[in-house]
Amino acid sequence: MIVSYTELAATLERGLVTVGLETDRARRCAQLIADSTRDGVPSHGLNLFPRVVAMIRSGAIDVHARATCVAAHGAIERWDGRRGVGALNASDAMSAAIARARTSGIACVALGNTSHWMRGGSYGWQAADAGAIALCWTNTLPNLPPWGADSPRIGNNPFVVAVPRASGHVVLDMALSQFSYGALARYRSRGERLPVAGGFDSEGHLTDDPAAIEASRRPLPIGFWKGSGLSIVLDIIAATLAGGRATHEIPSDPEGETGLSQVFIAIDPSSLAGADAQRVADDVIASVRARYPGERTLAARRQHLQDGIDVDDEAWGFARRLSSA
Amino acid sequence: MIVSYTELAATLERGLVTVGLETDRARRCAQLIADSTRDGVPSHGLNLFPRVVAMIRSGAIDVHARATCVAAHGAIERWDGRRGVGALNASDAMSAAIARARTSGIACVALGNTSHWMRGGSYGWQAADAGAIALCWTNTLPNLPPWGADSPRIGNNPFVVAVPRASGHVVLDMALSQFSYGALARYRSRGERLPVAGGFDSEGHLTDDPAAIEASRRPLPIGFWKGSGLSIVLDIIAATLAGGRATHEIPSDPEGETGLSQVFIAIDPSSLAGADAQRVADDVIASVRARYPGERTLAARRQHLQDGIDVDDEAWGFARRLSSA
Repeated sequence: MIVSYTELAATLERGLVTVGLETDRARRCAQLIADSTRDGVPSHGLNLFPRVVAMIRSGAIDVHARATCVAAHGAIERWDGRRGVGALNASDAMSAAIARARTSGIACVALGNTSHWMRGGSYGWQAADAGAIALCWTNTLPNLPPWGADSPRIGNNPFVVAVPRASGHVVLDMALSQFSYGALARYRSRGERLPVAGGFDSEGHLTDDPAAIEASRRPLPIGFWKGSGLSIVLDIIAATLAGGRATHEIPSDPEGETGLSQVFIAIDPSSLAGADAQRVADDVIASVRARYPGERTLAARRQHLQDGIDVDDEAWGFARRLSSA
Repeated sequence: MIVSYTELAATLERGLVTVGLETDRARRCAQLIADSTRDGVPSHGLNLFPRVVAMIRSGAIDVHARATCVAAHGAIERWDGRRGVGALNASDAMSAAIARARTSGIACVALGNTSHWMRGGSYGWQAADAGAIALCWTNTLPNLPPWGADSPRIGNNPFVVAVPRASGHVVLDMALSQFSYGALARYRSRGERLPVAGGFDSEGHLTDDPAAIEASRRPLPIGFWKGSGLSIVLDIIAATLAGGRATHEIPSDPEGETGLSQVFIAIDPSSLAGADAQRVADDVIASVRARYPGERTLAARRQHLQDGIDVDDEAWGFARRLSSA
């Protein structure tokens, strides 16, 4: 089913009002979800919407809660997400970090007690749209075995790094697993092998067979031992600064995945005279002559705004029914 | 040859005085180099010393130059490394970031125009010893093909993340290539295959044969396309904030590798009441039941302080001759 971005966003907005969000917050949240789908990341946009609604209905997410600053010192703040809507909490936290970076050059907001932020890249694009450099990350439920272990005890902790650039921001948005379970399922359903080894099979051998990895629950961290270490240290920093939960304290049922800890660091390059992210980024991209982070996002956005978006029928049907309820 | 840490540090100090460093700076620099060897990273300690001396003698590194702050706004500073000694410049920059984070919670020093910082982990351990969380990275000469390309156009840009912990800091120190050329050479000389695919052979096939990767000059970024993207965006941020060179502007001859750009971000967790990195890190490490970043460093340090260090004969001979010159 092909729908326009406008129709997608309006439908999501009505659905979010149905489950209790105030109009302005429903509009902002719908836009974040529609933007992810428009940008070619439906898994973290529309397709995640049914789960968010289920969590609102179960009470795991409180639609009325607003993230609030509970401690601050200089350019660092701690926010309590109060189990509110994850995408709105994250967007508010990034806004606060960007605003604080205007005066202090760099700023950090650590957000605890929040729920799934959906597409991490959203907050990188948000910062870059505001002219800021950003680094942000979230922890997750335990979904990845650390290197050397065979059961999921670390998170795939998506890590986002963004640089503003007029001709297309540079935004890296990467989970620390080589392939998500969603990606494994897509390769399997197409009958394809993975392009590179993506995990271990049940006998402990590296494999590019997506079904074998789904069965063993042993996907790989990026860079094997390196990504495993990065996941651990980012989890510790997020839980420490947010005063919130670490991965091992987060319920392993996706519909119970609340109490997440996140870090948003914003840097205002204009605070340093002559810090010309635009020129540097243009030169680096020209020199690399390979895909840069964010390039595909922009291409998907252009295509989807022009031709409409081929949405997942099931998730779209769900959103339609909710919007007319 | 087995030498004690004390003898190693004293020998390096005399050698650095011989090539012109003032006594106090020679002592600090010698300690940084000896610490890396003591901590089990000889490739970025003693074994890199002959190259540093060659660069001092060629004039590529100016032993008298001191990195200085050339611009500041709030909690962000830009420093000019003035082609000075990379390890001292980096240590001074991290010191400044830590000091600034005491008052502002988070702070950033971007250092341009510097030379090789040797072991990146040094500055993570430095921050953690001072009770600070740190993220820092450097760009490098072009030594890695971006994903989808076959010639080296990005850097392996080492990335360091550190958290203080009384019973052993958590310090991730990772280059963005899966294996360094030094690691490839060590596997080859032992007649071993790599534990996982480490690059492409000359026909463009993924391989675990270290010699084939040395021949093709096509090592892999960690996480394939993911590490390639991370290298690009970290390079852009470093060159932008430092007002310095990006990887494509850095000479590809290792002995000419100057004009590097680096970023040092320090966060003082004590600026937020109850931010207990120690407790969180202990709990996470207990839950993960796998190696944590920094664990091997600490084990190597203990063993080497107790039993002495089996140093590389060639590099040690070089240091000995220089120290008695």
